[in-house]
Formats: sequence, structure tokens, C-alpha cells
Amino acid sequence: MPKLSARSVAAPASPIRRLYPLAVEAKKRGKKVYHLNIGQPDIPTPAAFMRGVHEATVKVLDYAPSPGIPEAMEALARYYGECGLQVAKEEVLITIGGSEGITFALTIACDPGDQVLVPEPFYPNYLGYARLTNVEIVPITTCREDGFHLPPRREIEAHIGPRTKAILFSHPGNPTGVVYTKAELEMVVDIALRHDLFIISDEVYREFVYEGGHTSLLTFSEVRDRAILVDSISKRLSACGARIGAFVSRNKDVMAAANKCATIRLSAPTFEQLGLVAFMADPNHRAVVEEMIGEYRMRRDLFCKELLDIPGITFRVPEGAFYVMMGLPVEDSEAFIRWMLTDYPGPETVMLAPGSGFYVTPGLGKDEARGAYVLKADDLRRACAVLADGLSTFNRARAGEVVAGRG
Amino acid sequence: MPKLSARSVAAPASPIRRLYPLAVEAKKRGKKVYHLNIGQPDIPTPAAFMRGVHEATVKVLDYAPSPGIPEAMEALARYYGECGLQVAKEEVLITIGGSEGITFALTIACDPGDQVLVPEPFYPNYLGYARLTNVEIVPITTCREDGFHLPPRREIEAHIGPRTKAILFSHPGNPTGVVYTKAELEMVVDIALRHDLFIISDEVYREFVYEGGHTSLLTFSEVRDRAILVDSISKRLSACGARIGAFVSRNKDVMAAANKCATIRLSAPTFEQLGLVAFMADPNHRAVVEEMIGEYRMRRDLFCKELLDIPGITFRVPEGAFYVMMGLPVEDSEAFIRWMLTDYPGPETVMLAPGSGFYVTPGLGKDEARGAYVLKADDLRRACAVLADGLSTFNRARAGEVVAGRG
Repeated sequence: MPKLSARSVAAPASPIRRLYPLAVEAKKRGKKVYHLNIGQPDIPTPAAFMRGVHEATVKVLDYAPSPGIPEAMEALARYYGECGLQVAKEEVLITIGGSEGITFALTIACDPGDQVLVPEPFYPNYLGYARLTNVEIVPITTCREDGFHLPPRREIEAHIGPRTKAILFSHPGNPTGVVYTKAELEMVVDIALRHDLFIISDEVYREFVYEGGHTSLLTFSEVRDRAILVDSISKRLSACGARIGAFVSRNKDVMAAANKCATIRLSAPTFEQLGLVAFMADPNHRAVVEEMIGEYRMRRDLFCKELLDIPGITFRVPEGAFYVMMGLPVEDSEAFIRWMLTDYPGPETVMLAPGSGFYVTPGLGKDEARGAYVLKADDLRRACAVLADGLSTFNRARAGEVVAGRG
Repeated sequence: MPKLSARSVAAPASPIRRLYPLAVEAKKRGKKVYHLNIGQPDIPTPAAFMRGVHEATVKVLDYAPSPGIPEAMEALARYYGECGLQVAKEEVLITIGGSEGITFALTIACDPGDQVLVPEPFYPNYLGYARLTNVEIVPITTCREDGFHLPPRREIEAHIGPRTKAILFSHPGNPTGVVYTKAELEMVVDIALRHDLFIISDEVYREFVYEGGHTSLLTFSEVRDRAILVDSISKRLSACGARIGAFVSRNKDVMAAANKCATIRLSAPTFEQLGLVAFMADPNHRAVVEEMIGEYRMRRDLFCKELLDIPGITFRVPEGAFYVMMGLPVEDSEAFIRWMLTDYPGPETVMLAPGSGFYVTPGLGKDEARGAYVLKADDLRRACAVLADGLSTFNRARAGEVVAGRG
């Protein structure tokens, strides 16, 4: 057979992919698995969205306009207005999820071989988007002790070279939950101006902020021409399967380029755009989102409180998103997570996402894991109890092995 | 502002994009425009599909599995079975339209800078997929006199070089309507084997065949490991806005690579997959498709008969799809189509797609245009009458100008 392209076979399997089959097997053996590893909200999708889909009167399901159904673009522009961001309809392009928005942004900012700076740990799919667009990710390492806030300016600038075209980050952060301060964002803006870079701000968790406020990249007028906001309704509407996101820019040339990208793939799915329109037409829509955020705030507080009671687990309480990136009292978190799926006794277990999967710098994150608080309060409590017992059982078993090995 | 990437600004505006605003203006002036230029079916989407969407019981709209909802993959595998192709569920991956299927295929077959052979004239979006994946399209020119059938083997092989990785074609063809004979496909298969190429067969019009039969690339067992079928429900379910297509291969490594591509973009939209499942569960589904094809056959016969009556228009009756690529009795079809939108008198006009937009070889297709028979019979008849009158008025006006210029 012909050889597959290097880019299609290059990606190493991520740790979570290696572990997933073990979770499936554990469940087949009758085990209950608390999935703290995934970022899939469990809260029902709002009824207004569902009504929009179910009651859509479509006779011929023809191509939607490439930049989006006008009412859906308007709905999102209105949403940003509600958040204090003045955005025109033409500055919003509906994308097939946040995934497509980032792919478009990388395509527009970079030619093959160009580089983007990304604070690590970061969402592993960024590596996929970068590989498919032939862009190189240059990591800016942040650490747990600093709550994953940005390093000093000189450390960031040291990574900028002639092929650096953009800075990309998720804000609030996945997997870190970090919400940058205004001063941090001002530093990023200043770096982008001085080095002539695009800033790609992935704000899919923009509503999930529990401490202070969230400052959107779009509020900085100095970067009107270089700021790209990537957004999605996946998280705040509990509608990951809708595949509806947005690419927002106030730069006409950038929007023209994004429109070309959109034209090539023809259109985003119709019914889900109509769901969004119906949701935004519901006069109660802000309250629906705020109620959901309230539930996540309660879960964050609960999850962090429970984690703090587990000996050896270290983290700073995250300001946003729905993740805690924690240090575990083990040498190799992947080995521990595997053991929890294969060897931990009893009827229940917990799955976390190994930290190393969120770093590109070799060796980093080995003792870390990401926990997502997308379970109901009782399940979160139970998951933490199982995790605590798992850690002490695992470490006792290891200590016993070491002793046995010495004897 | 930072410079946009070369790839995002490279594409020249296609002729149809230049003309589209003129059609909008014509309609604003109260003109009725018969759109023979677009490939958007006008036939209602089947009721069973719509019911599948409207009655879907989804509580949390979570990510669908990346390769597709299992029932949707099964539904397509069953569909291929009904067409005489034995395909396992695992050999089918649900894509976000045929567009994504071709993008995946190019990504897997080619690294940046590699080449694919494509018979021209071809679907212009292929250029977009190729640009986004940094692949070069090498055209194999076919011509109207041959009904756009393939040239002799040596002409195709003359274009193969060290960076050629695949042959890509739509079959039946857009814009040509050509359906390749078994002998032609055997030649392609043989070329692919000899030169170690992938074959990417875009069969989104696979049901739209009016003469003889359609031989799918998947019927050739010699190319089990190098054949990639790209499919879509857009045309045969009159559901372009669903964004549901398929990537089919019997090669496990190719499917593994396609699954990686699919994982990166997370999932295809859920409701439209459920629509497909419901459609295929309708015991009447074959009859629904066949009735639709019957309507298109009638339209093709009608359209071709009407076109044959227009002096100077030349074409060979196409065997499939829903297009006629015709020669017009004008020097520059784009100038004529523009004139029809801006200067043609009376309450009605016709829009065609200029032929040059389907070629990459400079100068080709200048006197050609693509007509799509996606209108009801009466409208098709009327559109042809307007086209006939337009051509003679245009040519008289031009002759007058020439005479005036001489005078």
C-alpha cells in the first residue's frame, strides 16, 4: 500500500487514549467509574435550545450561509453585547465548534513551518490543530505553584523568533482553570504589539469564572487588528454535540480570510444554529446560564474542599473553567491512574486525566493529573473519597513492593 | 497589523463569487433570476430524516463519538450493502460533509508539498481543500468533445512525478456529469497500482446515474488498501445543510489515521446523524431516493432537449450528477453571464456558473458554463427560453458594437 503521510501517523497516542480501553474493561467487569477525566458537562442542555431544534420548520435542508445563518450571527453578537463587548454581526463567523475556530485562526496567522506560543499545560487538541495546519507549538511553561499564571515577560519574549506569528491560550484555562489578571493580559497585549503577533484567545470557558472577573481579549482596543476570539456554545449551553462555535475579529482582512476558510467547508450544521437562535430569543437565557455557573461554583468549592483533605494532593484553587490541575503524591500519575482502573479493589474507581498529556516539554506533568468537576455533588464527594483511598492503597502497595524488593 | 499567512490570502476570487453580488442586485431591482449556477437541490428533504431530528430525545447534547454515532455508521454501512458494496461499520467514518472527507483524505495521502492528480474541469472547492492541506493539484485535462471522459493512459502517466501521492476525482463528475466506464476505472486502478498512489473517489453523486450503471471504486479488490471513498448524504437526501458525509476505506491504517483526524475535531453534529439513522430505518427509504432520481432523470432529459434547441450551445448528454457543462456561442462566458445579470432586458434572467472556474489550466473553459438542473420542469423550460433569447440578444448587441466600432 502507499505510505501514509508523515503528518497523519506522527502523533503519539495521548496517555488518556492509552487508558481509555482500561476504563471500558473495568466497566465491563461491573465496576462503577467516576469520570473525573473528561470535560463533558452533565447538566441538561437548555430547553429553549432543544425547542429551537425540535420545532425548526425546514422544508429543504439546504446549505446554510458559510459565515453562519444571519440570525445565529446576530444572536452571538447580542450575547457579546450582553457581556459588554461591542461586536457587529459581520465580526462574528459561526464555526463548527471551537475546534474549527482555532484551526481557522492558525491557518490565517501562520504558514506551514511558522510557530505559535502557547502557555503549557494546554488543551492537547491544540497539538492536533497545529499538526493539521503544519504549525509548530512553542510552549511557555507555567507551574502549579503559581496557579499556572504567566511567567515574567522576559521568559515569554525569550521564546519569540522570526517564525513566531501568534500567541494562543485558552482563557479561562483548560486544564488549569487559570483566569489571567488584567495586568497579565496587558503584558500579553504589549508583547504582541512589540513583536507584531496575533493573539488567539480561546474563550470557550468565558462564563465559567468564580473569582474576580473575566477580561476578554476583545476589551483591549490596542489589539483590535490582531485579536482573534475563539468561542463555543459547547460548555455554557451544555451542548458539546452541537458543534457551534464562533470566530470573532474586528479586523476586516482577518474576517475576509476566515470567510474564505468557511466557504471551503460550505456551512456549519443548520439545526444547531437554529437551537442557538431560539436559546438567545428566550428572555430568560441569562438566568439559565447563571444558574448553571452557580452549580459549577458550588461544585468547584466542594471539589477543592474535598481535595484539600486528601493527604499529599497539591494545587491552588483555580479561578475558572471546571478543572483542577493537581499534583498527586505519586511519582507517575499515569501509572497510578492505570492501577486505579486495573487493580484498585472494590466496586468503584476514579479516572483522572494524566498531567503529562497537557505538556509538550518532556518530563513535565508526570506527577500531575487533571480533575474535571462535571459530576453531581454526591458523586464528586464519593469520587474524592475513592481517590483518597486509592492513593493511600497504591502508595502502601508500592512501599510494600519496595520493601519486598529490598528483602 | 501582523501579516496574514500567504495561504489565507492566496486564493483568487472565483468567477462565481465575482458575479454573485450582481445577481443580488438584479433581484433587488425586481428581476427574477433562474439560478442554474448552483448545485443545491430544491426537492424537500425526506420526512423520515426530518422526523429523526424533530423527535430525537436528547437530554444532554454531549459530544458524539468522533468516528460517528454507531447507529449512523451502521446505517451507512447498510446503505453501501444495499448498493452491493460489502463494508463493515468500522470501515465507515462519519464526516462533517463530503468536504471534510476530502480534507481527511488529502491530509492522510499527502504531506505538505505533495501532489494529487485531478481530472479537470473539477469542483472548485478541491482547490480550497488542497490549499488548506498544502497539497498541489495537478490537472489532467479532459474535454467537452469526449464528454469529459479520461484521456489515454500515457497522458495521465505523463503527469506523475515523485511527489504524486493520489488521484482524486468526483464520480459522477461535478461539473461534468461524466460517469466513467468500467474500462476507464480499470485504467485508473492499474495506474494507481503501478505508481503506488491512493485513489480518492468522491461519490457524493453516486445515486445520480441515468445511463448504464455506476461502478464504485470500492468494487475493485486490487485497490482495497489504496481506495478511499468520500461520500455525503447532501445530494441524495436533499440535505446539504446536514453536513453529514462519510470517509470509507478497507485499509486499517488509513482508518486509524482518519480516526485521528476525527478525534482532533471531536465530533460531527448529533441531530443530523440521528436524522440519517431515522431515514435509513424507514422501510421505504430506497423508494424515496429512487423517486428523487427519477425526477432528476426527467429534468436531465428535459434540460438537454431544451439546450439542444438553442443555436450554438454544444455538449454531450451527461450520464450522471445534475449538471451540464456546455459550450456557449460566445468568446467569454463570464462576460455573457455578467451581461445577463446587469444588461439583459425584461423581468427575468438566468445565471450560469462560468466554465473557467472549474479549470486550473489558464485559458480553458472560457467559452463554457455549467448549468445545474435543480429547478422544477416549468422553471427549467422557462430558464432555457430566457437563455436562448439572452444569447441571441447578447450576440446581436456585440455584433452591433463591432459594426459601430468599425463605422
